[in-house]
Amino acid sequence: MPRSRSELGGDRVPGRRAVRELLVAGNRRVREVWVARGRDTDPRLDEIAELAADAGVAVKLVDAERVRAEARTESPQGVLAVAAPVEPASLDALAQAKDAFLVVLDGVTDPRNFGAVLRVAETAGATGAVVPRHRSALLTPAAVKAAAGAVEHLPIALAGGVPAALDQLSRASVWTVGLDAEGDTSVFDLTVADQRVALVLGAEGRGLSRLTRERCEVLASIPMRGSLESLNVAAAAAVACFEVARRRAE
Amino acid sequence: MPRSRSELGGDRVPGRRAVRELLVAGNRRVREVWVARGRDTDPRLDEIAELAADAGVAVKLVDAERVRAEARTESPQGVLAVAAPVEPASLDALAQAKDAFLVVLDGVTDPRNFGAVLRVAETAGATGAVVPRHRSALLTPAAVKAAAGAVEHLPIALAGGVPAALDQLSRASVWTVGLDAEGDTSVFDLTVADQRVALVLGAEGRGLSRLTRERCEVLASIPMRGSLESLNVAAAAAVACFEVARRRAE
Repeated sequence: MPRSRSELGGDRVPGRRAVRELLVAGNRRVREVWVARGRDTDPRLDEIAELAADAGVAVKLVDAERVRAEARTESPQGVLAVAAPVEPASLDALAQAKDAFLVVLDGVTDPRNFGAVLRVAETAGATGAVVPRHRSALLTPAAVKAAAGAVEHLPIALAGGVPAALDQLSRASVWTVGLDAEGDTSVFDLTVADQRVALVLGAEGRGLSRLTRERCEVLASIPMRGSLESLNVAAAAAVACFEVARRRAE
Repeated sequence: MPRSRSELGGDRVPGRRAVRELLVAGNRRVREVWVARGRDTDPRLDEIAELAADAGVAVKLVDAERVRAEARTESPQGVLAVAAPVEPASLDALAQAKDAFLVVLDGVTDPRNFGAVLRVAETAGATGAVVPRHRSALLTPAAVKAAAGAVEHLPIALAGGVPAALDQLSRASVWTVGLDAEGDTSVFDLTVADQRVALVLGAEGRGLSRLTRERCEVLASIPMRGSLESLNVAAAAAVACFEVARRRAE
């Protein structure tokens, strides 16, 4: 099977939630859906088969091992779709949006964390994500599975580098807010939360790169109230994105 | 090597954050620390070796494959500690605490999600977690790694069943708040957030069991503002726990 290529990837879609959302959203062409032979009857797989049939997409019964190999993830949950890759959005369009609420990922390399952040951002009502072309996870199968369908809805722009992208956002009057353990503002006191805003998230462990930190207009921290020093990046994204959502809804 | 047993588990501790926190906290006996031979020099592994030496714990250089096998996780990050298991806390003590802020896990079976929820709860300042003895993940190596040290600080009580544990909490005047997509209160409008409270989290997909839902005094939902219908359980825990923390700090 020829492998489609785009800069973002996303042409292999494993996992029940991700495949279901791909078919329901109908935003890109789906070539085939593979279902693992001999699994216990699972109503969610039946639903996927029905959605595929409705969309005129061929469903192939294949060995579970073949699904796993093509999905390159531990547990594709017995289903994989082969689809047109995800087309990147325009950073300029994301920056100009009237209600811009963006997440910028600065060097998140773990695919599960990467996908989990996209899912969190989409459910919080973000209008887009910005990821660097290099030194970042992109839409590998594991990331697409963790995103659980977010890649069908959330526009994702590729940036040559995060610092330059932040400059572009600032010029478009989007506030750039870096999440940083050393940030002197609490995310719960962000005065710009209900304005056009981009939340900048760093890699777990290293956090924001020096250049990225310097370009952010605001550095905000999540108050840690226990003994541990940090949250996983997807959990931090959840706290910050839903705080922005809460403030924008007020 | 004899394997220690407790009902909770937790005697195998893989991952750099988890091992570091185990040694720093010093709350349970550590038998050995295994470091994988021939890894690139990593300052975090050097720090772990120093902490182990300071604590009088033997450090063994072993093959990376042996670390992986014993850790039973994909990426133990070249380090594993063998420790006394985590002793369960008393549910009664958690229920009676003056400032009780608990999380109750109702059937979270994925070990990474289970560990991630413990990490989120600890960083939000929760005073304890309650997990059922059966049909739940416990402190397997993958869960302990994802918890990133939370198991060294957050008391964890085992319950025969979640509904009975909720009754016990209610009798102790702890508000029981179930997170449920159908909940008619937004987590951001919870009037009981700053009181003694237990957040009840269900399994991804199935959500709260029927009996658990019926026993919760309040059902609260996280407002979904995108196209997707749900958050991962660890992300939902992050939003709810930090909202409670924010309200309690006010």
